[in-house]
Amino acid sequence: MAYIPVPDDQPGIRGLMAFRPETAKPLNELVDVLLSNGGGLSGGERELIATYVSAQNDCYYCQTIHGAVAAAHLNGDEALVKKVKLDFEHADISEKLKALLVIAGKVQKGGKNVIPEDVERARALGASDLEIHDTVLIAAAFCMYNRYVDGLGTVQPRDEAMYRERGKWIAREGYVQVSKSYIPMASPTQAT
Amino acid sequence: MAYIPVPDDQPGIRGLMAFRPETAKPLNELVDVLLSNGGGLSGGERELIATYVSAQNDCYYCQTIHGAVAAAHLNGDEALVKKVKLDFEHADISEKLKALLVIAGKVQKGGKNVIPEDVERARALGASDLEIHDTVLIAAAFCMYNRYVDGLGTVQPRDEAMYRERGKWIAREGYVQVSKSYIPMASPTQAT
Repeated sequence: MAYIPVPDDQPGIRGLMAFRPETAKPLNELVDVLLSNGGGLSGGERELIATYVSAQNDCYYCQTIHGAVAAAHLNGDEALVKKVKLDFEHADISEKLKALLVIAGKVQKGGKNVIPEDVERARALGASDLEIHDTVLIAAAFCMYNRYVDGLGTVQPRDEAMYRERGKWIAREGYVQVSKSYIPMASPTQAT
Repeated sequence: MAYIPVPDDQPGIRGLMAFRPETAKPLNELVDVLLSNGGGLSGGERELIATYVSAQNDCYYCQTIHGAVAAAHLNGDEALVKKVKLDFEHADISEKLKALLVIAGKVQKGGKNVIPEDVERARALGASDLEIHDTVLIAAAFCMYNRYVDGLGTVQPRDEAMYRERGKWIAREGYVQVSKSYIPMASPTQAT
């Protein structure tokens, strides 16, 4: 049971978003922009970064749902998602994405860990300013989402099929659209 | 100089928001909801939590600007802001806020550090579910903002007067309103 009253049928961040629709709105909009194909990195690459950081933060809910969305973007290749979480340097991904995952891993430990050489290496392997920006913000944002989900003690069911189905749905529709199925309309009574 | 090209006259997160208006929008909306008087904690209490977490993450820009906004909410009491950053258990704040700062400090290190007893203690001292929720999300969100600002190597001027003036402006107008002075209109060319 989470530390605050959330709907029984909404695990992980979904219960928290139902509890506080006013913050759910920007939280969903942020992840929708950051994890969509919006120029630069593909949806699959963006979700792999989110999954990797969530695994480093040991957040079961986030690494599992974003891993499922990543796999949905990558023709169902769950083995690749697992390899990126455990040992991305030897995964079958581009050298550019490996350099970006190094940056993401440093951001996860703290922003000051990123040094100019990390950025130069990513740039030499083809990363654009936008891709570097988005990598840092995805990694930083998941340091928020992971802490939010674990810090409020949410229920995180061990049900891989549920995450897999939901991952496909999110990959198809996007976060803002899917969130409409569980976030009530914001109302002043909810926030006070 | 930041790791990506940002306007010379926009330090800290402001340059990053000018670079990427699409993510700036939800980032500003989130902080506007989380740090405003919206029921439960006051604006000053919310800013103190943000300032404390930013100090724990050693982010100069964030702890200084949010410290300035906190002081603006607290009749200019900069000494209280400093005391909260360094030794909140002995600061002249409520026992409830101290219990919430304990939770915020645990979230800063990782969400799983929060245990039921931390939440029960805050609740026994008068914290509502909404206040517990907002404390965890403020702390988690500043683990994002701090990493974003430091991870992209932004310029963070040591100019206390600038932060003080800006802090008063933000306390008066709010984040979304103030952000309109430096974030260009979002356009597809900016994001690709």
